[in-house]
Amino acid sequence: MYDLQFARRFDGVSGSAIRDIFKLLGQPGMISFAGGNPAWDALDNETLSQIARDVLAGPDGKALLQYGATEGWKPLREQTARFLREEVGIDVAESEILPTTGSTQAVDLLLKALVNPGDTVLVEGPSFLGSLQAMRIYGANLVEIPMDEQGLDIDALERAAIAYRPKMLYTIPNFQNPTGVTLSTARRKEIARLAARYGFVVAEDDPYRGLRYAGNHLPSIFSFDTEGLVVYLTSFSKLISPGTRVGAAVVKNPQLLRKLVIGKQSTDLHTPLISQALVAEYLARDLLGAHMEKILGMYARQLQTMQRELAALPVKVFPTQGGLFVWCALKADVDTVALLQKCIRNGVAYVPGTHFYANGGHLNTLRLNFSNSTPEQIVQGVAALKKSMEEE
Amino acid sequence: MYDLQFARRFDGVSGSAIRDIFKLLGQPGMISFAGGNPAWDALDNETLSQIARDVLAGPDGKALLQYGATEGWKPLREQTARFLREEVGIDVAESEILPTTGSTQAVDLLLKALVNPGDTVLVEGPSFLGSLQAMRIYGANLVEIPMDEQGLDIDALERAAIAYRPKMLYTIPNFQNPTGVTLSTARRKEIARLAARYGFVVAEDDPYRGLRYAGNHLPSIFSFDTEGLVVYLTSFSKLISPGTRVGAAVVKNPQLLRKLVIGKQSTDLHTPLISQALVAEYLARDLLGAHMEKILGMYARQLQTMQRELAALPVKVFPTQGGLFVWCALKADVDTVALLQKCIRNGVAYVPGTHFYANGGHLNTLRLNFSNSTPEQIVQGVAALKKSMEEE
Repeated sequence: MYDLQFARRFDGVSGSAIRDIFKLLGQPGMISFAGGNPAWDALDNETLSQIARDVLAGPDGKALLQYGATEGWKPLREQTARFLREEVGIDVAESEILPTTGSTQAVDLLLKALVNPGDTVLVEGPSFLGSLQAMRIYGANLVEIPMDEQGLDIDALERAAIAYRPKMLYTIPNFQNPTGVTLSTARRKEIARLAARYGFVVAEDDPYRGLRYAGNHLPSIFSFDTEGLVVYLTSFSKLISPGTRVGAAVVKNPQLLRKLVIGKQSTDLHTPLISQALVAEYLARDLLGAHMEKILGMYARQLQTMQRELAALPVKVFPTQGGLFVWCALKADVDTVALLQKCIRNGVAYVPGTHFYANGGHLNTLRLNFSNSTPEQIVQGVAALKKSMEEE
Repeated sequence: MYDLQFARRFDGVSGSAIRDIFKLLGQPGMISFAGGNPAWDALDNETLSQIARDVLAGPDGKALLQYGATEGWKPLREQTARFLREEVGIDVAESEILPTTGSTQAVDLLLKALVNPGDTVLVEGPSFLGSLQAMRIYGANLVEIPMDEQGLDIDALERAAIAYRPKMLYTIPNFQNPTGVTLSTARRKEIARLAARYGFVVAEDDPYRGLRYAGNHLPSIFSFDTEGLVVYLTSFSKLISPGTRVGAAVVKNPQLLRKLVIGKQSTDLHTPLISQALVAEYLARDLLGAHMEKILGMYARQLQTMQRELAALPVKVFPTQGGLFVWCALKADVDTVALLQKCIRNGVAYVPGTHFYANGGHLNTLRLNFSNSTPEQIVQGVAALKKSMEEE
């Protein structure tokens, strides 16, 4: 086997820690708080089976199998515009919406359009590790902005904007992954103001907005932007199906949108049309409302159960009103990477918090997912976590 | 609107010329020889409608909607292994197959894994413009290897390998896009030998192999490789459906495969599972054989018609035994970019050949697609081409 020289962009990039943890989860009875998966009961395969049959047998059936436009399947752009208007309070033209293969691809394309190696991208500390990995592959200089219970620290953001002249800020405003924190309205306004002042793009990654179990929806950062600097990323992964891989970027700046389209052309040409049509038709049939009601009830009970069970453990549990995750800080001397091995022996898994920090550290933190376990499994899994901690 | 600074990788990249030509094709009655689309009659939406219903309603229905592995849907890897064994003569393990979102993505991931800005990639002159664009975005130094009717010139390849120490050679061995040329068996062996000698990866992009209307199949370059340097790319776009976006990379080198998987993780996480399952189930039901028989008969007639009609024009028509394209050289002083405007007014479109050359030039060449027009349209379209040439 010839010993290949790989591109430098992969130096120090080792693959997603979560995906590697998944490989440890084969043993029967393992309770996984590690993923970010929807509940199996939240996946409405019977309805989507009928929709798939109908759209492929219908008047657009052959068009769904033919090459499509990089800019996306028109009915999906229409339905996404309606979803944004009705559910997010964002009123945009169809032509400002680019369907992507998951919002994963939207983040990748934004980095491709904007970031030269060495350019600074500001990230929340902690942040979504999939996005951090994408940034590393583009050679970004990652600068962490600390967070509190109102979201990222605005003074620290402004200092970093001055010091680093960043190309981009990446933020998850609602029920952030991994902390569950929601950015306050005041800070959303400030972020739009600072973006305009210092000229950086804001990637507002908002897959969890619909998963609110208490409190009121807040306006998007996008809604405070007057300069075309905020790109709003949405996803149907948590609301309908992640395996279908349909997300979208909302882009006011036509030059930026054009770069994303060119980047997408040579990445996958277009998102598979059957995926786009499944989501478009699900929305067109007005099925989302009733489905959301069902999954919100289910997830709220799971979150409540997890919060109640964790109350008996010597951990600080961060409050959250939605999303899929609970973030915990253990005693300062606990190493959750080491603890994970014990937990796996005791039948429970999570993701150590350190993986979500661009600079590492924070070894005493961990992220728990509640959506993919039943209340009974949550009780049992937290008990296994407690047992493992007591073995320390 | 804030005036953004984009990443340097997009400097000089303006988007696919083909896709821009598509936008000119709106007028009714236009005959397009410009795309690379399968015939509408080759898209079996009724069968795929039933398959989609069945797989989503079946035992894997919920799993198809859940997050999947970056490495691909297991039944698709199995069926692709079988396809490669039975149809291509390549015997590989499932674990050496990475399903991708079209083979477009496989090319992108190979470049991501291997190419630093400034690294040389060797390409056929001419070559597929989508791949050329992807290479430009990665900052590759593109070096053209001239072709004759046996494929790329082996002596020129060796000289370029010595002069540039390339990271990769990109070649389309069967019914090349755009020329329709098939690489001879002797040259395939030589390419594998030179790759091993000079240590470059060969991306063997082979989407057209199944579309042979005359003559015998030749062994792949991959089959002559003993060093894990040849990556074989296949695609179901031309055989089943392009809109479904399912291709695959076959990678013997486990380190390289790992880089492709890491790259894919942060690009789209995984190919939409419904797309993967549609293709897997289509293959599992043994539907491909009869379908291929149907489309081969259809395309052979279309190719014959085009070759016959072109014989009356003052153009050199390159011979081909398969694929989707006919390549023409006009008189040396004709500019096919200018001619295209006349042709569009006369109701026919093609892609000027210059777009397929990394260094431009060759203004008297053009590429005609025959698969997406009926024999009647082909007669009419070639007549419109003739008329436009006579107006010169």
